[in-house]
This record gives sequence, structure tokens and C-alpha cells, in this order.
Amino acid sequence: MRRAIALAARGLGHTSPNPVVGCVVLDASGTPVGEGWHQRAGGPHAEVHALRAAGDRARGGTALVTLEPCDHTGRTPPCTRALIEAGVARVVYAVPDPTPQAAGGAATLAEAGVTVASGLLGAEAAAGNEAWLTAMRTGRPFVLWKYAATLDGRSAAADGTSRWITSPQARADVHRLRAEADAVVVGSGTARADDPQLAARLPDPRARPTQPLRVVVDTHATAVRPGARVLDDVAPTLVAVGEDADARHLAGLAEVVRLPPGPRGRGLDVSALLAALHARGVRSVLLEGGPTLAGAFIAAEAVDKVVGYLAPTLLGAGPAALADAGITTIGQALRLGVTDVARIGPDLRMTAVPERPARPTTSQES
Amino acid sequence: MRRAIALAARGLGHTSPNPVVGCVVLDASGTPVGEGWHQRAGGPHAEVHALRAAGDRARGGTALVTLEPCDHTGRTPPCTRALIEAGVARVVYAVPDPTPQAAGGAATLAEAGVTVASGLLGAEAAAGNEAWLTAMRTGRPFVLWKYAATLDGRSAAADGTSRWITSPQARADVHRLRAEADAVVVGSGTARADDPQLAARLPDPRARPTQPLRVVVDTHATAVRPGARVLDDVAPTLVAVGEDADARHLAGLAEVVRLPPGPRGRGLDVSALLAALHARGVRSVLLEGGPTLAGAFIAAEAVDKVVGYLAPTLLGAGPAALADAGITTIGQALRLGVTDVARIGPDLRMTAVPERPARPTTSQES
Ligand SMILES: NC(=O)c1ccc[n+]([C@@H]2O[C@H](COP(=O)([O-])OP(=O)(O)OC[C@H]3O[C@@H](n4cnc5c(N)ncnc54)[C@H](OP(=O)(O)O)[C@@H]3O)[C@@H](O)[C@H]2O)c1
Ligand SMILES: NC(=O)c1ccc[n+]([C@@H]2O[C@H](COP(=O)([O-])OP(=O)(O)OC[C@H]3O[C@@H](n4cnc5c(N)ncnc54)[C@H](OP(=O)(O)O)[C@@H]3O)[C@@H](O)[C@H]2O)c1
Repeated sequence: MRRAIALAARGLGHTSPNPVVGCVVLDASGTPVGEGWHQRAGGPHAEVHALRAAGDRARGGTALVTLEPCDHTGRTPPCTRALIEAGVARVVYAVPDPTPQAAGGAATLAEAGVTVASGLLGAEAAAGNEAWLTAMRTGRPFVLWKYAATLDGRSAAADGTSRWITSPQARADVHRLRAEADAVVVGSGTARADDPQLAARLPDPRARPTQPLRVVVDTHATAVRPGARVLDDVAPTLVAVGEDADARHLAGLAEVVRLPPGPRGRGLDVSALLAALHARGVRSVLLEGGPTLAGAFIAAEAVDKVVGYLAPTLLGAGPAALADAGITTIGQALRLGVTDVARIGPDLRMTAVPERPARPTTSQES
Repeated sequence: MRRAIALAARGLGHTSPNPVVGCVVLDASGTPVGEGWHQRAGGPHAEVHALRAAGDRARGGTALVTLEPCDHTGRTPPCTRALIEAGVARVVYAVPDPTPQAAGGAATLAEAGVTVASGLLGAEAAAGNEAWLTAMRTGRPFVLWKYAATLDGRSAAADGTSRWITSPQARADVHRLRAEADAVVVGSGTARADDPQLAARLPDPRARPTQPLRVVVDTHATAVRPGARVLDDVAPTLVAVGEDADARHLAGLAEVVRLPPGPRGRGLDVSALLAALHARGVRSVLLEGGPTLAGAFIAAEAVDKVVGYLAPTLLGAGPAALADAGITTIGQALRLGVTDVARIGPDLRMTAVPERPARPTTSQES
């Protein structure tokens, strides 16, 4: 199963709106005879890849799958049928499928006389499918907020300079996060200040990462102008604008989505943005800031995980990594649990998860 | 030697203006027969304690000492004489003594026919004596700046509330730092806002920590009023005030020291403060903030080590952990090297050391 989980991870960033899934098939004597993973949405599921590799040797054998095999006909036929037809005697899966259409796989297999067991390395497999499982539960994409700051929490110096707060190693790590995400989101302030490309670039020149959808939240459609790097042809781009913004200059350069104003009358509605992304098949969002938009996401309780790159530097002045999140007193502070601390070059990478449950989307659009 | 270093650490906070020193004496066959550490200034040195415990068994044996044995008569006779009189055949020390009056111990021992070796676990022993060695090199006390902040670098919420940002475990760790320091320093802002006691309290009720000198930097002598907790009788207190402040209300309650104004015309001169503390035998200072005074210390290049307690919480508003340190652009940022990261309860403790060399004191007083 550990091998199946590792196989599943290869699909990260490629499978949405589907989960990542890995599968290992053992023959009747317990020898691995086939493996596979779900490589891209619309393509064969993990089980099908693994069964194909195993061929006749699957008969009487065991399939180890990270997620309960699906039981419905979508773009591909149900995996339960493939497993039954291959003559597999036993199916062990790690995590049950929470979706109403796909669930029921275990029951169908059992009815066909296949022995079914579940829960093996369940927590590990669930962590590997964190984004998709969260999106299933909340009805909106999983949101990972990434920030870079000094030890005193500054994301730029007093004069606005911020290149580079963190090390090349930390920036390479961010590109990995981008490659694993379905969409990368920034606010108009960041688009205006940094003119970022928002593409995933991996250190290995042969690695061709899937590019995430690039998203700029630009209420008045004034921050993204023709010639902006985010409009190059490396990846598709979506600009979220207000209902009456003049976005004619973006025609043919980016997709434009119109959203209602935010609940505090400022910017655009975060829930509506997430619903619009969800409708486009986006299941995981990397929120890259800046501080103002991140504050709005925190206030909307729409951050599922935080990754902070802390550079061992001190500034004593300059904008903070997080701006107004609607919190005024210490008792209202958003509490998180630290799940990982790592050294990335000279920097620290801190991963934390909010302790309160994520709020499902409440937008009119969903 | 590892044992001697551990013994030395028991003296932390008790020996200033002397270093901490540990000593283990082996008999001629290499069996440990005595150990000791320098327990308090004015008391016997580590070697004397260890030789007393060893008695006659020291003859022909080896003394392992964390610091080169002293060669001068201060409040106690030179340790070199004690070692020679005890008939020790071999002395191994970890770190040479950098002070002109005490140095020369190795030479004196060698002249008396004792075999002398040095450098064993030198880096480890030097780390154990970090404060004292730094004070010797710079001519001012070693300064450890401690702060507590949220992940977004806030030391309080927007309404000023800050109790408690960090966990009980982190606060207990701060009390350990206080017990190891000779003086604890805060600015008038912290004295006014928090009315702190600044005493060391250890979790074990039997532990009676040495109390550090409590220091408040209060230019106009208006922050520390009679009845302030920092004026209780748990430990001595020093209030640093400007040259023409009216400090009559502190008579009999605290020592008052008068200092010149700071180089930027704000508050008091940090170098002069450190020189005044050095003159009182203080070799290690725990700077507890607040953000403004910490900024002045950073600007004066008078911080040797930073310990940050990062609570996994987000606020999005409120004062930063570090205020104006005279840094305006990213290239001027104070760079540090992270030397340790630890989990303290739910919090992270990050230890870092500035990469630039500490500047010796330049005050008129030194
Ligand atoms: N260190 C880091 O990790 C990091 C990451 C990113 C950026 N940065 C830095 O952050 C700075 C920009 O920060 P910023 O805070 O000005 O920019 P930002 O957060 O990228 O953008 C803020 C803008 O987004 C728009 N917006 C749309 N919907 C919103 C909503 N619901 N709530 C709030 N705002 C919404 C608002 O402008 P409109 O309504 O006019 O569109 C708002 O002013 C740059 O200097 C950049 O370098 C640092
Ligand atoms: N999270 C933490 O780690 C932590 C630690 C401590 C405090 N705090 C919080 O910080 C807040 C207080 O912060 P603060 O910045 O106002 O107080 P502060 O740094 O304790 O005190 C600042 C004051 O010190 C005096 N001062 C004397 N010499 C100075 C110099 N050379 N440079 C600058 N100031 C000098 C100045 O007032 P005068 O010249 O008038 O004397 C200055 O206003 C409180 O809310 C407290 O709870 C947090």
C-alpha cells in the first residue's frame, strides 16, 4: 500500500477534478505483478493501468488501491467491473470514496464474491489525497496559503523591496507547490507590484510540470494590463473582476470571470471566487497572497493549510505577511497546529493547519 | 570533558563576572575521583572543588577542565598552584582563557612539569561559555533578545491584548532563560503596558533560581511607579533614566542609573546602558523587549543571539515583534543563521545568530 500511495502522488496537479489514486496488483502468491496510477483526468484509472500491466497474473490475486474503487461510468467504465472481470480475489483499499456517485464500489465488489478490506494506511493515503478529500467535504477547492516572511513577519522592507526575502531553495520549493496545485491565486496588489508570471518552473530542466491555472483577483480590471507576464502563453489565465468592471483589454488574453463584491464591501467575494474555480474543475488552490487578499481568505475561513517560509532576517519595518483578517483581539486569533517544520536552505518552512473546521462555501454561485 | 561541560552549565546565571567552569579529576589509572564546578563568583573555582573531592588520589592523575586554569590571585588563589600542589601529572582544557590577567595558566603548568593539552571539545565548551566569552571579546555583556510572536510576526493583537500569545511551555522556557541571565532588560513601554515582575520562576517548586538583575529603560522615569511589580523584593532592580529625569519616587525602591540620550535622539544610549551593566559585573543580558527597545538594540548592533517563540496563530493586525531598527530596504536586512529549531509545546522556538560580527561598545562610559 505504501508503494500505491507513492504512485498516487505522481498524479498531483494532473488529475483534477479527480483524486490521485495509486494501485498495486499482486498475483495469487503475493508477488507484485502490476502497478499504476491515475495520470490525468479523462485517462484510465489507477486500477486499469495496474490490471493491464498484470494481465492474466491478476487472476486470484489482490489489488491494493489508495481509494475505494469507483462504481460508476464516467469518462471511463467503473473500476469495480474491471477488477471483477480480471478475476481479482481480494481488494484492499485505504480510504473510502466520499462521493455519492462513485461510492458503493466496496459493496459491488463484495456482491461479486471479491473479499474486500479497507483502512490499510488510511491516514497516510488520506494525506496524499488531502486536497481532493477536502474539496469533496467542503464543496470548494482546497486552499493552501503560502507566504514568505522575515522572522519579524515582514513580507517586504519599508521601501517595498522584497526580492528576495527567501533563498533560492525556498523559491524552488514554491515552484513544486505550484506544480502540484490546480490554480495559483494572487491579488491585484501583487500583480501590480511584482508582475509575477505565476508559472511552475522545476529545477530539473527535463521536468515539464503541469502548469496551474493562473488567477488574479482584480476588482476593477486595472492591475493586469496587456504585456503582463501573467498573460504569456505558458499557462491559461483567469482574471476575476467585479460585475461592472471594464475588462475589454483582456479579450483574447485571459478568461474573465465576474464576481459579486466581498462581504465587507471590499474587493470580490472569496466564496464566489472559489465556487467559480470549483465549477472549472479546480480542486486545489495555492494562494500566493499578498497580505490583503490572504486576510480576506482567512476572514472567509477559506484557508485549509498554511505554508510559511521564514527567512532568518530581521527588518523592523515594512508590511506584514498578513493584513486585516477581521481579528481585533487575542482571543479571536486563528489557532493552527504545526504539522511540519523543515529547513529549506537557510530558511525554515513551517506547515500548519487551522484548528477550526473549514467552512463550506456559502456563495450564491454554488 | 563532556561531563565537565555539563558540570560547568550548572553555574549559568551564578558566576558573573566569572565564566562558568567544570572540572573532572581522574586518578593515575584514569578513574574519575573528583568533580566540581564554579558555583558562584567569589567561591572556589571548579578545579579546587574537584581536587578537594579527589584528595590524594589526584596525585599522578589528570584534570579535565572546560577553561584554561587561571594563573592569577583574585578573590581566590590561582588554580595553577592548586593543580601543581595536588601533584596532577596532566591537565587537559577545552578553551584557552582570553583574559590578560587570568591567561598564562597553561605556560605556568608546563613550566612546573605538568603535561598540558588543549582544545578537547573546544567548540562545545565555548558554546557553554558563550555569554562570558562574548563579553570578554566585546567589552559589553552578551545580549540575547527573546521575543514571542504569531506566525505573522505580531507581538500583540490590534487592541493591544497579548496574554498569552505563546503556550505555558514556552513561558516556562523563558523563565529558564531568565534564571541563566545576569540581567533582564525591558523598555518603558513594556513596563507600562504589562507591569511585569521579570523574576525567574521555575516549574520545580524546589528549584530556587538565581534572580537576574531587573532593568527598566525609562528615559523620563515615568513608567516605573511605586507599587510596580518590578519593584518587589524578589530581586534587585535598576532603572535607567535620562540625565535630567526626576527619579525621586524611586529612592529606596530601585537603583537609578543616569544615561546619555540615544544616538538617534530617542530614548537612552544602548551602548552606555550596556557599559553601565558591564561595570556592575553583568556579563549576560536577556533583552525581553518590547519591539521599540529591541529595534534600538538591533540598530546599535548589540544583539548577539535571538530566540523567537513562534505561536502557530495568525492575527493579521497588531504591533510587530520588532519596530524600527533603522533598516529601510531589503539589502540592509539583518541576516542571521538559524542554529536551532525546537518544538516547545504547540509553539516553535527558533534560535539564530546575526551573521555580522558584534560591535564592541563605543560608549563614553566604557
Ligand atoms: N512575501 C510574500 O509571501 C508575498 C506574497 C505575495 C505578495 N507579496 C507582496 O505583497 C505586496 C502586495 O500586497 P497587497 O496586500 O497590496 O496585495 P494583494 O493582497 O495581492 O492584493 C490586494 C488587492 O486585492 C484586491 N482584492 C480583491 N478581492 C479582495 C478581497 N476580497 N479582499 C481584499 N482584497 C481583495 C483588492 O484590490 P482591488 O479591489 O482594487 O482589486 C486589494 O487591494 C507586494 O509588495 C508583494 O511583493 C508578498
Ligand atoms: N511578544 C513579546 O515578546 C513582547 C515582549 C515585550 C513586550 N511586548 C509588548 O510590547 C508592547 C510594548 O512595546 P513598546 O515598543 O512600546 O515598548 P518597549 O520597547 O518596552 O519600550 C519602548 C520605550 O523604551 C524607551 N527607550 C529607552 N531607550 C530607548 C532607545 N534607545 N530606543 C528606543 N526606546 C527607548 C522609550 O520610551 P522613553 O524614552 O519614554 O522611556 C520607548 O518608547 C507591550 O504591549 C508588550 O506587551 C511583547
